[in-house]
Amino acid sequence: MKALFHVNEPDRWPRVLLNINNFLRDVGSGNASIEVVANGAGVLAYSQGKQDLIKQMEKLHGQGVVFAACRNALNMHNISEENLPVFVTVVPAGITEIVQKQAAGYAYIKP
Amino acid sequence: MKALFHVNEPDRWPRVLLNINNFLRDVGSGNASIEVVANGAGVLAYSQGKQDLIKQMEKLHGQGVVFAACRNALNMHNISEENLPVFVTVVPAGITEIVQKQAAGYAYIKP
Amino acid sequence: MKALFHVNEPDRWPRVLLNINNFLRDVGSGNASIEVVANGAGVLAYSQGKQDLIKQMEKLHGQGVVFAACRNALNMHNISEENLPVFVTVVPAGITEIVQKQAAGYAYIKP
Repeated sequence: MKALFHVNEPDRWPRVLLNINNFLRDVGSGNASIEVVANGAGVLAYSQGKQDLIKQMEKLHGQGVVFAACRNALNMHNISEENLPVFVTVVPAGITEIVQKQAAGYAYIKP
Repeated sequence: MKALFHVNEPDRWPRVLLNINNFLRDVGSGNASIEVVANGAGVLAYSQGKQDLIKQMEKLHGQGVVFAACRNALNMHNISEENLPVFVTVVPAGITEIVQKQAAGYAYIKP
Repeated sequence: MKALFHVNEPDRWPRVLLNINNFLRDVGSGNASIEVVANGAGVLAYSQGKQDLIKQMEKLHGQGVVFAACRNALNMHNISEENLPVFVTVVPAGITEIVQKQAAGYAYIKP
């Protein structure tokens, strides 16, 4: 099963991480490919995120979850790529990533 | 035509039901497979819903619309499954349901 | 690449147009089929939209972006079709359009 989560508002992150944890518990981490794409103000959580959110992301990353950040959004919010947590993948444009993943069979979810 | 509506905020329900009514009027109920998946606080409408919302759901259910509730969300909100309206289907995890339906060709809509 | 943007809240328009501009800059306008479907209060931007939004839409329309309005939503908000900007396409029901486009391979994005 393949799932792409789209986050463009910072307050949605706790909900997104809860959704992913429930999903993984239901299907097993070996049975799911999961990517989170943050664009717009969604990227703020990567740089100004509360430590408990970052820790949850790190743990999920250890289970194979991909955390992506839109470069346009990072630039717009003056976030330097070097300051991002090491588990974050920067993509040139969040929308392109979302379109490509859906074309590759990922379900789209907007929590 | 196959459509999955995702509801995770209680105030979106009137909009969701209006969307479904307009959709059915446009295409005819015999030509559409429709499922609504409520997770997060979206499930509150099933237990604390205003009676006019529940009545609209009941009527749509009579036209074949499936109303699903995420068990994780029910537990989190202390909603007992026995207290749900009879037309509600409980699924183990809302996200899994959303992913599976999209894999089965359902369009995703987040009103 | 094919992308459908769904707008049902008027304040999301600046974000939608920014997303589309970034997407087109990333992939090139010759490589993307883009449609925006406005329903609910999303259609208000077509009639009461700030001129800078309308101008951005016009420019994107010139690059091939389709801007659609749900007729049910226009009726509900008492917007006459003759008063819409010429670049707007009216569709009988926004949800039907969204379902059909996804069935035709368009990725769904809700900014």
